Formats: sequence, structure tokens, C-alpha cells
Amino acid sequence: MYSFDCQSRVRYADTDKMGYLYYGNYAILYEIGRVETMRSLGLTYQEMEDHHHIMMPVAHVESRFMLPAKYDELLTIRTTIEDRPGRIITFINDIFNQEMQLIHKAVVKLFFIDMKTNKNISCPSFLADKLLPYFE
Amino acid sequence: MYSFDCQSRVRYADTDKMGYLYYGNYAILYEIGRVETMRSLGLTYQEMEDHHHIMMPVAHVESRFMLPAKYDELLTIRTTIEDRPGRIITFINDIFNQEMQLIHKAVVKLFFIDMKTNKNISCPSFLADKLLPYFE
Amino acid sequence: MYSFDCQSRVRYADTDKMGYLYYGNYAILYEIGRVETMRSLGLTYQEMEDHHHIMMPVAHVESRFMLPAKYDELLTIRTTIEDRPGRIITFINDIFNQEMQLIHKAVVKLFFIDMKTNKNISCPSFLADKLLPYFE
Amino acid sequence: MYSFDCQSRVRYADTDKMGYLYYGNYAILYEIGRVETMRSLGLTYQEMEDHHHIMMPVAHVESRFMLPAKYDELLTIRTTIEDRPGRIITFINDIFNQEMQLIHKAVVKLFFIDMKTNKNISCPSFLADKLLPYFE
Repeated sequence: MYSFDCQSRVRYADTDKMGYLYYGNYAILYEIGRVETMRSLGLTYQEMEDHHHIMMPVAHVESRFMLPAKYDELLTIRTTIEDRPGRIITFINDIFNQEMQLIHKAVVKLFFIDMKTNKNISCPSFLADKLLPYFE
Repeated sequence: MYSFDCQSRVRYADTDKMGYLYYGNYAILYEIGRVETMRSLGLTYQEMEDHHHIMMPVAHVESRFMLPAKYDELLTIRTTIEDRPGRIITFINDIFNQEMQLIHKAVVKLFFIDMKTNKNISCPSFLADKLLPYFE
Repeated sequence: MYSFDCQSRVRYADTDKMGYLYYGNYAILYEIGRVETMRSLGLTYQEMEDHHHIMMPVAHVESRFMLPAKYDELLTIRTTIEDRPGRIITFINDIFNQEMQLIHKAVVKLFFIDMKTNKNISCPSFLADKLLPYFE
Repeated sequence: MYSFDCQSRVRYADTDKMGYLYYGNYAILYEIGRVETMRSLGLTYQEMEDHHHIMMPVAHVESRFMLPAKYDELLTIRTTIEDRPGRIITFINDIFNQEMQLIHKAVVKLFFIDMKTNKNISCPSFLADKLLPYFE
């Protein structure tokens, strides 16, 4: 299991008429969570696309909204990889408000696509190898 | 069962570096789908908040990404209410591309909140009554 | 002079905590305005990029906020090309609310870039020719 | 004169089909710039709305796009208040890429509105006083 915490502040742009973070904008938090989790492992998603020519489109998302996120709150995004990635990688996102209450949970599944052939591939070794120590 | 189709065009603003509709922006399509479905029944969500003081926060979303949505495509959003709403209303969104291929599926569950007491309530009668003929 | 009107509805996603359209989201309305104006002339921006390999990055925007745009309002975007395009094309956007009050004005200037050479070019003839009758 | 630097990373969500930060999303950077500038002075915009009942709608924006902002770049937003605020406060935003090249400039003018009377007011003293030492 590998887990990483990062933070993101709720901006005015992200709120809606209800006064809270718009439900569609949580997906940006999942993105921030998984990109920063990869960076914490020494990889950037930018390099993955630009140097390795692998992209990771999202296949499936499940989101559970528990409490609203308020304007200007500094949210904590906890991203966990529970299972060794294969043709699918699964990121679990637990989002906490400033009082560290769990306000949101999501499970995001992504594919690996070889951008040259446009075909599904398995998790590339440069990512699998970084995760290996956490799944032993 | 009640079902309604409406359309929305993929704007440049909605695309990302991959060249397709950003995965987080599908939530806006679900919103358009359910608001226009309510309008087709003779209700507006705006009146619901402003006159009836009921808001409908999202509780749960499940999304399945099947094919990408391309820039400038006129998507069809088919919104279906399969079950009589109780304390939860469930909207199913099937999204089709310009060739009417199914590219995306989502199930969105929302609560009803009385804005005066800030408490969960059952589906208000003015909405339940509109749907009644479709569930007999 | 060439002018074209189109419409766009203010979605919940577009609003912010103040209850109105977020100031940054007007840029999407300018985009809708100029893309639909080009479509009304028989051109699509999508073809321009994909077939003609010309892109139009924004160089300069000036926006004047006069009245707020409310949730669920069907706004009218009036897009006007007042000057024959050269190396720059200027779109003027007047945005009206549902009562047809002018609520917003913007002037947006864009370049033409040849995507093969990555260099600035003049307005391509297939667009200039469409506009010619309106500037005589 | 008062000036403050903060940083923001270009997310996938913020990019468009061109591969760069979408032109409409710079407005979010201006927001981040002015909110963090106020926070550096010991004020939060959230308190301003919730405790002082003053909101600051945007009146006028002028933006100059010089170079594109790339995906995953850590941008520096330099926000400068050059003039003592009166009924209008003007924030100047200079945005730099990771190589500290100036890529974007904006001038954003905002009003102060008393949320109880819905009327324009002058810059409240708790903000004016914080800025006073920088304008002597």
C-alpha cells in the first residue's frame, strides 16, 4: 500500500451558488492527488506523456459526498494505492476539511494507453518498480 | 420511468491537453441533463431553491468512461428517472456522441434539503406529482 | 461589419458563492460567441485546426462587468466583427440578460498561427473571403 | 506600493486542446493572486464577506497574453497594488513561468459592496489601514 497527502485550497472559482465546492470540481482534487502522489514517487505525469508516450485516461469514478467543502478551506487530499497496478491502476482519494473531518471519498480507475499504438498496456515498469517496495 | 434527451456542445474550455472533454467536466453534463429533465416536467431547479427553499445536493456519483468526447461534438444527454424518488432521487445519464454511440454512463443520487431547517426531507409533492403518471 | 447572436444558459457549475456567474467564466461565453459566429459564416474552428492547421490563440482581452448574470438565465451573446481582420482579428462581445439588458462587454483579439511553422500569419483567405461582403 | 508573490501549478483540468492553460483560466490565477495578497496583509477575503459583509465584485479586467503556460508548470503570480484604493481597488498581476519569464499581464479593478445595503462603498478602513504604510 502506498499513501500520500497533499493540500489544495477551495477557491471562489470552485464554489457554486450553494456556497460550497461544486460537486463537479472534486474531480480536480482527485487529479491533484494522483499527480502529486506520482511526483512523491519521483515520477511526473508530464514526463509520462512527453517522454514515455503513455497516457492515463480515466475509466471509472465512484464518488461519495459526505460533507460540503467550504470556500477558502485548505483541504487535505489523501491518495492511496491499495492494489498493485496491472492493466488498471486504482487511486483511492479521501478528502478531509480543515478540521480533518473526512468529507469525501472517491475511487478512480485509470488505464494505461501507449500513445504511439493507441492501445491499452499494462502498468509500465518504471512506475511498477517504484511501487514494488510498498506491496511486499 | 421518465426519460428526456437534451444536447450540449463540447467547448474548447471543456477539453484538456489530451484533446478530449476533461473527465471532470462530465459532471456539468449530468447537471444540464437533470435540470433540463426537470424543466421538461414543468419545474425549474431555480424555482425549487428560490420559491420552495429546497436544494438538492449530490450524495453519490458513479461514472463509466467508455469513449472520449471530442471538441465541438454535439453530445446527446439522455437522463432517465427509473425509480420513484423518496429521500433520494436517482438520475441515470447516458451520453451519446454525434454518431449516437454511447460514450459515457453515470448514476447520480441527490438528497432533498429543506433550506430553512437544513434537514433532509422526502421528495416534495410538487415534483413527485409530476412524476407519478410515469411510475404507474 | 458582421454580427451574430447566440444563446447560452448560466449553469450551476458556472456560478460562485456570490450566487452569480463567476467573473472568470465570461471567457467561455466569448469563446461560444466567436465559434458560433464563425459557424454562422460556414466555417468551424474545429476544421480550421484539423484541416487548415491554423490555430487562433488569444492575444488580448478587455472585459467590462456591468450587471451580474444570474443562475439559469438564458444569456444572449452578440458577437461583432467591426474591422476587416489582418494579422489580428477582433471580436466584440455584448452580453445581454433575459430582459435584454446589456450586462457585459468584451473586446477579444486573437492571432492566427500556422501550426506547421508555429508562426504568425495573416487572416487566411477562406475566412477573409467569407467576411469580405460585410466590409464593403 | 505593495507587492506579493505566490505560486500555482497548471493542472490538466486547466489545459485545453492546444496543450496549454486555457485563456479563460487565467482569471482564477488573478483570484489566487489577490486573495493570497490580502492574506499576506493579515486579511482573508472569506472574513471580509462573512464578518464584515463586504464583497468585492470585479468591475473591469484587461489581460495581455504573451507566452503560453504549459501543463504542470509552477507559475509565479506577482500581485501589485500600485495605487491607494478608493471606491475601486486595482490589482496588477504579472504571471511568470518556471523559467521566470513574464508570460502574462493583467489589470483587475474591483468595487467594494456593502452586502447589507447592496451599495458601493469606499475601501473599508481595516484594509486601507493595512496598506497605508506602503503608500507613504
